[in-house]
Amino acid sequence: MTSKLIIERISESNFDDFIYLIEKLAEYEKLDPPDAQAKIRLKRDGLSEDPKYEAYLGFLNGKPIGYIIFFFTYSSFLALPTLYLEDIFILKDYRREGFGQKMFNFCVKQAQIRGCGRMEWCVLTWNEPAIKFYEKIGASRLNWYFYRLTKDEFIK
Amino acid sequence: MTSKLIIERISESNFDDFIYLIEKLAEYEKLDPPDAQAKIRLKRDGLSEDPKYEAYLGFLNGKPIGYIIFFFTYSSFLALPTLYLEDIFILKDYRREGFGQKMFNFCVKQAQIRGCGRMEWCVLTWNEPAIKFYEKIGASRLNWYFYRLTKDEFIK
Repeated sequence: MTSKLIIERISESNFDDFIYLIEKLAEYEKLDPPDAQAKIRLKRDGLSEDPKYEAYLGFLNGKPIGYIIFFFTYSSFLALPTLYLEDIFILKDYRREGFGQKMFNFCVKQAQIRGCGRMEWCVLTWNEPAIKFYEKIGASRLNWYFYRLTKDEFIK
Repeated sequence: MTSKLIIERISESNFDDFIYLIEKLAEYEKLDPPDAQAKIRLKRDGLSEDPKYEAYLGFLNGKPIGYIIFFFTYSSFLALPTLYLEDIFILKDYRREGFGQKMFNFCVKQAQIRGCGRMEWCVLTWNEPAIKFYEKIGASRLNWYFYRLTKDEFIK
């Protein structure tokens, strides 16, 4: 394996590659891909001067093979920002070759550069390969339950 | 119970009340409270022009009895911001009187006003009163594990 993974932040010029990878993730998870309006919001929210998220693409010989999305949350106890990794995805044909590890390491490096006290993320409880990876790198699983209300449930 | 809960955003004038309540929560959760440097960062990060978090205090007859901290994360699938509730805390002597519910409802309202697609939060697995409350309001518990790396673990 001599191909080198190039990690690039999303931009006007590679945004179609980003959408392509999100659609591949949706296909893999049998979920609806973002619709036309959602794609417009994704672009506005990711490329604005004060972006709501940061996303980076992994390219191998010019081909987009994976992406990460993160943003910064905040720890009130440390009084420091936290890098929260929202998505990490590698196309099926490119797994088990260390590219996911490289993109994860890129996030850790960003957490360091940005002065974060922590890096955090969630994993689906059935995703055993991912869980094995996170345990291997020595991450701590917290004794937390994660709850959600969706906007249809907001009105009381 | 005729006392009315007043919800106020943190400011220069009530910041000491905020610190007092955070210390009370640390005590309840058996965690270390913020040290002197962390308190300075908390103030800078919460009261700056582009704050890293939003916090609101609940006052009852002028006495601070609880607080909430939230910030905005992002759902790549919805392409909408999420209101993430980091802390919600009511002093022990003022629980079971609906004040937590009122502060929680305030967050839901903020999620609505800010155009969020979701509101999310975590709860310690041993915190049964909180879990009962979240189940009662119909929130969904996700099949996720929550992982963390702390800054001492960043360097590889």
